[in-house]
Order: sequence, then C-alpha cells, then structure tokens
Amino acid sequence: MITGKNYIGNSLSAKGTITYKTFNPKLNTENDTIFTEATSEEINEAVALASEAFKIFQTISGARKAAFLNAIADEILVLDDKLITTYMSETGLPEGRAKGERGRTIGQLRTFAGLIEEGSWVEARIDPAQPDRKPMPRVDLRKMLVPIGPIVVFGASNFPLAYSTAGGDTASAFASGCPVIVKSHPMHAGTGELIASAIQKAAQDTGMPNGVFSNLNSSGIEVGQQLVAHPKVKGVGFTGSIRGGRALLDLAAKRPEPIPVFAEMGSINPVVFLPKALETKSSNWAKTYASSITLGTGQFCTNPGLILAEKSEGLTNFVDTLAKEIVTIAPQCMLHPNIHSAYSTNKARAQSQKNVETKANVDTVVADNYAQQAVAVVSGKTFLENKTLHEEVFGPFSLVVECENATELEEIIANLEGQLTGTIISEENEVAGHTHIVNALSNRVGRIIFNGVPTGVEVVPAMLHGGPYPASTDSRFTAVGRDAIKRWVRPFSYQDWPNELLPDELKNENPLGILRLVNDQETKEAL
Amino acid sequence: MITGKNYIGNSLSAKGTITYKTFNPKLNTENDTIFTEATSEEINEAVALASEAFKIFQTISGARKAAFLNAIADEILVLDDKLITTYMSETGLPEGRAKGERGRTIGQLRTFAGLIEEGSWVEARIDPAQPDRKPMPRVDLRKMLVPIGPIVVFGASNFPLAYSTAGGDTASAFASGCPVIVKSHPMHAGTGELIASAIQKAAQDTGMPNGVFSNLNSSGIEVGQQLVAHPKVKGVGFTGSIRGGRALLDLAAKRPEPIPVFAEMGSINPVVFLPKALETKSSNWAKTYASSITLGTGQFCTNPGLILAEKSEGLTNFVDTLAKEIVTIAPQCMLHPNIHSAYSTNKARAQSQKNVETKANVDTVVADNYAQQAVAVVSGKTFLENKTLHEEVFGPFSLVVECENATELEEIIANLEGQLTGTIISEENEVAGHTHIVNALSNRVGRIIFNGVPTGVEVVPAMLHGGPYPASTDSRFTAVGRDAIKRWVRPFSYQDWPNELLPDELKNENPLGILRLVNDQETKEAL
Repeated sequence: MITGKNYIGNSLSAKGTITYKTFNPKLNTENDTIFTEATSEEINEAVALASEAFKIFQTISGARKAAFLNAIADEILVLDDKLITTYMSETGLPEGRAKGERGRTIGQLRTFAGLIEEGSWVEARIDPAQPDRKPMPRVDLRKMLVPIGPIVVFGASNFPLAYSTAGGDTASAFASGCPVIVKSHPMHAGTGELIASAIQKAAQDTGMPNGVFSNLNSSGIEVGQQLVAHPKVKGVGFTGSIRGGRALLDLAAKRPEPIPVFAEMGSINPVVFLPKALETKSSNWAKTYASSITLGTGQFCTNPGLILAEKSEGLTNFVDTLAKEIVTIAPQCMLHPNIHSAYSTNKARAQSQKNVETKANVDTVVADNYAQQAVAVVSGKTFLENKTLHEEVFGPFSLVVECENATELEEIIANLEGQLTGTIISEENEVAGHTHIVNALSNRVGRIIFNGVPTGVEVVPAMLHGGPYPASTDSRFTAVGRDAIKRWVRPFSYQDWPNELLPDELKNENPLGILRLVNDQETKEAL
Repeated sequence: MITGKNYIGNSLSAKGTITYKTFNPKLNTENDTIFTEATSEEINEAVALASEAFKIFQTISGARKAAFLNAIADEILVLDDKLITTYMSETGLPEGRAKGERGRTIGQLRTFAGLIEEGSWVEARIDPAQPDRKPMPRVDLRKMLVPIGPIVVFGASNFPLAYSTAGGDTASAFASGCPVIVKSHPMHAGTGELIASAIQKAAQDTGMPNGVFSNLNSSGIEVGQQLVAHPKVKGVGFTGSIRGGRALLDLAAKRPEPIPVFAEMGSINPVVFLPKALETKSSNWAKTYASSITLGTGQFCTNPGLILAEKSEGLTNFVDTLAKEIVTIAPQCMLHPNIHSAYSTNKARAQSQKNVETKANVDTVVADNYAQQAVAVVSGKTFLENKTLHEEVFGPFSLVVECENATELEEIIANLEGQLTGTIISEENEVAGHTHIVNALSNRVGRIIFNGVPTGVEVVPAMLHGGPYPASTDSRFTAVGRDAIKRWVRPFSYQDWPNELLPDELKNENPLGILRLVNDQETKEAL
C-alpha cells in the first residue's frame, strides 16, 4: 500500500504539514495519494538512525549483505503489477519500459550481491612484516576498502527504478556497507515508496540494523539541502540536472567536513560523423539516429543532442533524411508537465539563437505533455561562439553542427564541456586517419563509441557512466557497473594487527578465498 | 648548479622581480642563492606547455614512462653530495636523514616504474559483445584507467625529497601519464631546483614531451592560487597545513570546472593505552614514546600528539616516566625559523589552556631554531569541551588526556577530527575486550596500529597515508604506496572499438600480458 509517509528505519512517519501529489502525464491529472514532506525532525531522526546503524552494518559480512540485496530484489518482484501500474501512472512511460527497468534494477542488486559475496572487490593488500630488515625491521601492513558512512541518494526523474530508490547508487552503497537515506523524487513518490517498502521488509527479514535505510519525501529542495549539510552524512549520490548537482556539490564543499558528491549530470553526447561514413551511408545513419534521438522521448542522459561533421554533400543528405525520418515518429509523452515545459522552453531557446536553422519540427497539435521532436542546424563558427547552444535540451532534440573543415571540428571538440559519451561514425579504416579527432573527443568524454548510438548503458564491469565535469562531478568514478561501489569506500590499513582480530579479508588463512595482493603478487593463497 | 630560476619545460626562466633566499636554521643565516618567483606569464606558459605535453604523454607506453621514472632516480643519484649538502643547509636535518629520504624518494620512483612497466594497474575490464543476446544484442565494452591531465604538486616543508619535487605525488602523477607542475617550496627551493634539474634532464634523455614537467618558484601563496585556478590544470596534490590545504580545496571547488584536490594535512595521531598495558609496561612504553614524539624534532605528519587513557596508577607512572625521559633527549633544530616560531606559539597556547598541566618542558636555553620538547596533561572533560586542544602542535609536543572511564574515552575518540593514524597499546588478549574503542578509532583514522608508534610510513602497497577529513581532503585515496596513482586517473570505456585501434591494455591479444577482468573473471589470457 502507498501511504504517502516517510520511511524512517523500520517506522513510518508523517509529522509534517507540507503535502503533495504525483502526476499522471498521460491522463494529465494528479494521482490520488497525498505525500507528506519530511520535517527537520524526521530528517535528523533518519540520519541519527543511519549513523547508529553504520556501526553495525559496516561489520556485517559480504554474504549477509548479499542476502539483504537479494531479498530487496525478491521483494521488488513481489510488488508485481502494483509497481508497474504505479510506475506508469507517475511517468507516462509504457509497460515494456517499466518491466525492462525493473529487470535492470533487479539485475544490479543481484550483481552487487554476487560481487560482495565473492569478496575480492575490497582490494586486499598484504605486506607481511620483515623483522630482519636492515637498518629497521618492517612492520606488517594490511589494507582493504571499508565503507565511509551514511550516504544520501537523490534519484533521477527519468529512471524511477534503476537510478532511484533501489537503483545503482543505493545498491552500490549497501554493497559497500554504507546505510542509505533516499531523498525521494517527488515526480515518482509512489513508485519510490513501493520500493522503499520492499527495502524495509528485506532489511528486517535479513536482520539488518534499524536505520540502514530511510526514504524521505520532499517536494522542494530543502530536505535534500538539510541532508547534504548534516554532519553525520558522509557521501552523496545524485542523478539529475547540472544546476541541481552543482548546488549540492557546492553545499558539500562548504561543510566544515567536506564530503564526496558523485553527481551524474547533464550531457549532450556529441556524435562525430567522419566524411566517408556520410558519403556512403548517410541515409542509414540518419534513420538510426532518428530512433536514438527520440528513444524514451529523448529522456535519456545519453541522448545524442549534438551531431558534428564537416560540411559535405553527405552531411546535407544526412540532415535532410534525419529531418524526414524524425517527423514520421509519433510524438510521445514526457515524464511530467514540468519536464515537458522545460523541454519546450529550452528547445525554443536553442532554435531562436542567431543563425540556427530548424530542419525538422513537429508542430502539429499533440496531446498535453507530449513532446514535439526537432532537429536544427548551425555552423561551427556560431556553435563555437555561442555557449547557449552547448546546453542540454532534455528531450527529443538534436543540434547538427556543420564545420568548415577538420581543424574547426577538432577545435569544437576540444572546447566542449565534459560529456558522458562521444561517438565516432566512420567507414572501415577511416577512423585510423583521424587520430586528432579521436584523441580530442576521448579527453572530453567518459565513454567513446564506434559506429553506434550512445543511448543504451549496459550494466557490465567495463561500463563507465560518468565523465569529465559537468557530465559528472568527479570523472574518477562511475555510476554504473561494479566499480560504482568505489564511490562509497576508503582504503584502511592495519599495522601489526593480531591475526585473529583482523577482518576475514585480511587474515593469514584467507578464509574467504579472495584474490589479494600479497608481497606485490596477486594470489588467492593463504599466507 | 642552482640558478634560482624557474624550470618551464626544457627552459630556464626568471622574468619576475620578486626574489627570496632559503635559510640555514642551524647556522641561523640565509643561504646565498637568490630565487626569482614565477610571474603570471611564466605560470601560464608552464600550464600551456603541460597541456600540450599531455596530448603526447598520455599516449606513451608504460615501458617508456618507466624509463623516464628510472632516469629521474638515476639523475638524483648523480647529484650526489651537492644534493645532500644543499638539503642539510635548507632544513637543519642531519646527513643520515637526507640520505634516508633520498633513498625513499628513489625507491618510490622505481616502484612506480615497476608498476607501470608491468601494466596491470590500469584495471582493464573487458565485456565482449554478445551479438545473439535477446531481446537486444550486447555491445563490446572495454575499460581502463587513463590520466586526467596536468597536475599541480605542492611539496611539503618537512620532506624536501620524498613528498616534494620528485616525491610521491609527482612520481604517481608521471606514472599515470599526467604532466606535473611543481609549486616549489620556498623553504627548500635549492633542493627543489636540483631535483627539478634531474627531472628535466631525465625527461629530455628519455624523449618525453617538452612541458611534461615544470618547477615554479614562489615565496607566497599567489603562484599556487593561480595554478589551482587555471582552467587547464586538472588536479592538485598537496602536503601541508589544514589552513593551506583547505584554502586550495575551496579554490578548486569554486572553479567553473571543479577539480580534485588531494591534500594530506594535519593530524594529531591519537594513541590509546588500554588499562592492562599501562599496568604492566608503562615505563617501557613511556621510553618508546619519548623517542617517537621527538623523532625528527616532532616534524612528522604521523607524530603522536595525543595520548588517551583511562585514569589509573599505570597512567600516572607512564606520564611521570615519559616526562622524565623526554627531557633527557637533546633538543634538535627545526626546519626553519617560521616553523620554530609556530611551534613555540602553538605549544604555549595549548599549555596555557584552562586545566592543562605541563608535565615536562625543556626550558633551558637552546640555540636559535632548536625546539624545546614538552608534554602536558588534561582531563577528558576539558579535552571534550575545548577544541583548541584538538589542534596540531607541529613539533615535539604531546598532550595526554586522562579519561574518567571507558565511556568517556570512547566519546572522545568518536568526536575526534579525522586522523592519519590511530594506535592501540594493549596487553596480549586485552584488545579483544575493547571492540567499541577499536571500532570508534577505526572510523576516525586511515591506519590503525597495534602496539607500536605511528611515526614511520612504509612505502608498500598496503600502506594507507590519508584519512577522514581533515587528515586528508578525500579519505578515498592514499598519498603513499602504489595506489597513490589512483588520484590522477579516471576510468574510460571503449564501446565496439576496432581491436587494432584499442590501447594495448585492451586488445584481444593482451600483448602486455596484464591481469584483466574478462567476463567478470580475472585472467591474463588473450581473448
């Protein structure tokens, strides 16, 4: 049942007076449940519980934490249709997407469960004592990764499951041994509460400490701000806009004790078409990109919002075909009226910039909250000069930049803001002749793609979802894949510590059988 | 020869008008060389060169970068006596320490050379395509660590070699593929220049790009500030005071593009004596700690500045013996008059706090710049209330806190600022009964020591030198040991990239024979 209350550890609570409802963008009406925003008192209670829970949770074995993560996945499946219909009612997204995202969320939880059950992820390093070393004996040193403390997670509007309440940030934080306080996303508060109930039940069933998880409602920015400023909060995960992420980063940086903020923010995901690829396959690529630009109503963080190429007949043909193809795709519903209105405003702003020519624009009447996709074209010179054109238009919009020559193209790439992805479209053997372009693009992105589309983020160890600022606030970490756990851990060394009191990961016997670096050699052997 | 000039890539330059000299604290006189502070123009030149050099340096193989690091080590040895005498003249430290630190510096360079020559440090992950996966084929993804760009290094006053010009920050940044600009420490500018000349020669001899290294003189804070604010600088390494480190962190956080700052700052390195250890071995431990507190004139970042224990006869005996022992140690010279005067001021401030009792104080007349060691005692209650007593007194001073009981002891530990190290002194089997103390201490420190002293930082993979704020600005990284390289790298993914164009680390054939995670399994096999 969706109660509209805050989940504070094992309790439900609604002491506040600020209330709100979620919105069904397809029906263009509010949903029924009334959600009560968390009060200062409730926020402090959740953080105090998390801080106490951390003392216990950080000592719980990988196997037991894995059982917790698997139980969350199981409980999410138990929610069944209720979850799917709530998800759909709060996002306007179709059933297939809801189920797909649920599968992804469960997959992430189970992957982290597997990772911590196996245990080698802690990067154990052991340098045994050398009592006979001259001039001084060497002490015994052993190091492993340990959790940093309570983490606040801000979910994404566009991924109510996979990047929200029990999404990658929460799953990786739990896996590391950190309690989590979710600042619930107001647009899908009901979906969030259902997932919160699954986590709460899983935590109780698997004997996790009270306070290992809380879910706090919020309709504005105050709850999140209070959480990030709280002295007992030790890290922040965020997925959303550059403005929102930067505000949290600045807040965290100003604390007496600054804390890490991993914010995955905006990206326009440049796609570079090399000349020969446009000469021979411009129509095919145009069709592929018409799909990628409109996929999920353009509401993916990896949406291709920028297409770069040298001027050519091939490029003209590409743009014409892309324009033709994209208008044939039926407009789709956006997540929320606010997102729809931001899209309309930002698209119009981009289209109205000097020297920007709109090539395709669905301007027939569509239902409320449905997005009218568009493609526009501009010269390289104008793009270089006008930073407004570098800003993300969140939705099914893409800007094509016609460059004078390869030098201008490289200059544009080198001066781009940091991006989640960059894509090179090339004929066979063509890319090898464009090292400068590839290197410039590599330095601006987190993931580089060959002859594909940036949409689609596989959850595998080799995925990097992040990138140079402002794609993320710290390019040294990823939000997706097993390495996402590294955001919430710190290395910790034991010097001359009694073997029996060491964590299992560092004991001589290697009881967990994990891979360790012993005397600078990787091994699963006991000492 | 020491010229007093700035090293900007392969050139020497002295365009400025601000000059300064270093100081010989033992002779209490200035040294001869006149150093010229870098101008804005020279700073910009160094950064522009570094940024261009990065384009090439980031593509250079591990084997070639290793040759560069080894050449630096060789060139440092070539400096021979000139380096040792200059070091001594700028620090007041003895020859044995100079040679020991040189050995450590060379060891670090060669260790990083070995690490990158072997190559597995890049954490290669490969998830091959699954063209037949349903409902969608899976793309091929490959990830590895790549350098982030030009790094600015601020050396430490107390380690002119191992934590300065060619110290751990520089060695790890070079190893990662990042160019380095050193903001030379004004107290040992001559030592710094000699090392800079070694790096410059090594870079030229091994064919590294011009600008891979620069060394800029500075007597104040302006050069460092301009460097950290420069848009083309991508990371900062710092060793020094909390005030200095925090100022740089704040500056970096306010940039349009924030950059990571790893600052290793202050620490008072709490040592907790358990009751039985004091009952039986208080005199032995007092002698050991009299040595540790005065080692290197107390000028180590891991100096034990805080001793915590429950009130007892054993503790009284420990304090009396410590007081007796410490005054028998001959006062030693400090690094610089400024450091000596800060020590005197900070020691006097601590000693003059309400309820603080001085137990040992060398107050006989000593030579200029020689430190008079001291030990003081205070109650747990006073220590909890008075945060001034938590501040580092850089030098041979330690504060003993007499706690009422174990509860107060745990409360004090839980409320301590973050620390580099924490130490537990215990009788055999005693520590197992004090889990709360150990857990509380573990959450406040980067390294925990059993029955030893915190001074002495081994350079091994299992060393963690860092800790919760303010011991360092980001507890997720270490300044010492092979993992220090992780501060300067980011993961980078290739999607469906042609095999022949991938870096060697990610090619199917695994030409470097490195350990990789392929399909979630660690292996050195080819695909």
